[in-house]
Amino acid sequence: MNNFNFYSPTLFVFGKERENEAGKLVKRFGGTKVLIHFGGGSVIKSGLLDRVKQSLTAEDISFVELGGVMPNPRSGLVYTGIEICKREKIDFVLAVGGGSVIDSSKAIALGALYDGDFWDFYQGKAMTKALPVATILTISAAGSEGSGNSVITHENGMLKRGCGGDALRPVFSVLNPELTCTLPAYQTACGATDMIAHVMERYFTNTQEVEITDRLCEGILLTIIKEAPKALVNPADYDARANLMWAGMVAHNDVCGVGREQDWSTHGLEHELSAFYDVAHGAGLAVMFPAWMKYVMNHDVMRFAQMAVRVWGCEMDFQQPEKTALQGIYKLEQFLISIGMPVRFSGLGAKAEDIPTLVKTLFSSGAATLGNFVKLNADDARKIYELAV
Amino acid sequence: MNNFNFYSPTLFVFGKERENEAGKLVKRFGGTKVLIHFGGGSVIKSGLLDRVKQSLTAEDISFVELGGVMPNPRSGLVYTGIEICKREKIDFVLAVGGGSVIDSSKAIALGALYDGDFWDFYQGKAMTKALPVATILTISAAGSEGSGNSVITHENGMLKRGCGGDALRPVFSVLNPELTCTLPAYQTACGATDMIAHVMERYFTNTQEVEITDRLCEGILLTIIKEAPKALVNPADYDARANLMWAGMVAHNDVCGVGREQDWSTHGLEHELSAFYDVAHGAGLAVMFPAWMKYVMNHDVMRFAQMAVRVWGCEMDFQQPEKTALQGIYKLEQFLISIGMPVRFSGLGAKAEDIPTLVKTLFSSGAATLGNFVKLNADDARKIYELAV
Repeated sequence: MNNFNFYSPTLFVFGKERENEAGKLVKRFGGTKVLIHFGGGSVIKSGLLDRVKQSLTAEDISFVELGGVMPNPRSGLVYTGIEICKREKIDFVLAVGGGSVIDSSKAIALGALYDGDFWDFYQGKAMTKALPVATILTISAAGSEGSGNSVITHENGMLKRGCGGDALRPVFSVLNPELTCTLPAYQTACGATDMIAHVMERYFTNTQEVEITDRLCEGILLTIIKEAPKALVNPADYDARANLMWAGMVAHNDVCGVGREQDWSTHGLEHELSAFYDVAHGAGLAVMFPAWMKYVMNHDVMRFAQMAVRVWGCEMDFQQPEKTALQGIYKLEQFLISIGMPVRFSGLGAKAEDIPTLVKTLFSSGAATLGNFVKLNADDARKIYELAV
Repeated sequence: MNNFNFYSPTLFVFGKERENEAGKLVKRFGGTKVLIHFGGGSVIKSGLLDRVKQSLTAEDISFVELGGVMPNPRSGLVYTGIEICKREKIDFVLAVGGGSVIDSSKAIALGALYDGDFWDFYQGKAMTKALPVATILTISAAGSEGSGNSVITHENGMLKRGCGGDALRPVFSVLNPELTCTLPAYQTACGATDMIAHVMERYFTNTQEVEITDRLCEGILLTIIKEAPKALVNPADYDARANLMWAGMVAHNDVCGVGREQDWSTHGLEHELSAFYDVAHGAGLAVMFPAWMKYVMNHDVMRFAQMAVRVWGCEMDFQQPEKTALQGIYKLEQFLISIGMPVRFSGLGAKAEDIPTLVKTLFSSGAATLGNFVKLNADDARKIYELAV
């Protein structure tokens, strides 16, 4: 096991109707003037935004609203948000929505205390401070409610890039599973896939002897595999939604990923797809992960066999463990199909002839390789995209 | 799943030689005058205490030392520590040791900012504040390094009582598995048993549909069952020690216990044993848990069967699930024996004739019942003690 620091100071406020505590929570964490950041009509139509505003008003906290965050959140709205924060002397950013809204909020919070271009941080600049961010989560997926990470797409070149640091950990996150009961099936499935991917990026590692985090990862995967179909069959199944919501948090606050090298090349491969075609991140991951797995499997067949046995219930083939490993990948694919996810380029509207462009953009930052489990060069990336066609 | 708050703001600093960062960490969290609290000779002999002091001195942080914490830490030293803190204007308590040292440090930190008797908090008074506490952990067991809990034995009546609150969460905890490599086998096994017990107190619940926390609990148990024997066979096995150390933290910071009713009656039953006979807490738990399980098993046979199958690898008996459930308890007992733990009163030097006294003290606070999974009255407690004879 490697040395590590683990710091997850977010206060998680979980359960029914907890969003009504937003005002008290903002006050507790020192907010006096809030930017409420959100996406489209659903938080308005559902009445959630009104409840949050009432809760702030009840505590005499003033606020400015900024809606309009789109999936794969863009830099344009971030610049607008930063400008508002500086002009209005905002001291607290409250994200009401899913991963895109939270990531956009984090970017605004970073930029609000920085004189330069916020994009610097997404190009590798180390962060030192940001406005406090809090979240009221409406979809179990990105894990951004408990992580110090943010992913933004810059409209200049459609570059999708991430950054991370403790300053971006939300001070509190309200997780009310009820808010996710009205999600369409496709978004629910995309969210589940995103969580699975967050765990698998950590699972495939070259670090040896990491049983505790292996087991935590496997436990999270087993939960998602059991609960996601229940939420699809009965969208109002509170307990299924609740299990998914806590699974999504622990999948990405890194409690299951510390002390081990992590991979993250599949997220890199996917980011090009969602930036280029504007498809859902989860759907892109459903397409790219099986392809990546098939390509790198022989690097450590036993690790793939372990997941196949422990998570997918495969019988171990002690003579030919690679058969077990492959069976696990096959079962993952079948699961993704069963929850309505695409597993090939065609399901995303992606095209084989775009692969050279995808590869080129992927390596445009100048890095020679991608990922850690297997370090992929541009030729590897091309072959993995081709496996996904 | 029940509503809950989860707040674990401790910075965990994990890995080889990390104790040398103690001074920088104390400074980061605002400490200027530190009470270093520790136990007996081992932290002195090993040179750990000297390294910690050097690290503080290097940052110009002054300190006062208070050693002498014994297992099942007593109120007497807590009163001494509180007096020192008040007299010397201490603003930070640094625990160097295991659960007993940490629990004693938390009690001192509470009392240092309170005009009354610190014991009030162990008799149910709600806490509001404490001095910041940090830990340098030397044994994987109590999980006190990541929890907001403390257990102290009051010398007036030998009452062993616990208290908890966010103010007691350590601001940082240094977890260096190397420091545990010199632990005697018996202490290693007691620590592993304590961790198992922390998970099982959470696992046996009446809350339905808690798959995510069930799976996290099971993953932690599977890890301890695999890694503890490795640490016993080869005490210097760093990776086994590292896996146990992180398992011990996640077993008790409550990430695996939120949203579900927890039991904790076995800890209550055990506290009487360790207070009365001054035996190791882990050893007492090894004796009491199987007895409690046999007594309450029929309350929810399927929950016991689930643990038997998922954790102990038992084959499910679909006709007679109670056989599977019993087999799981049997396997737990066999495991405890295999790591050198007692599983009967005789192994602790406890006597059947003391049972009436144990039961009387257990219910001396006036509570009518103990625990939640099954609410135990005094007669139930007596029968469980008798099962352990």
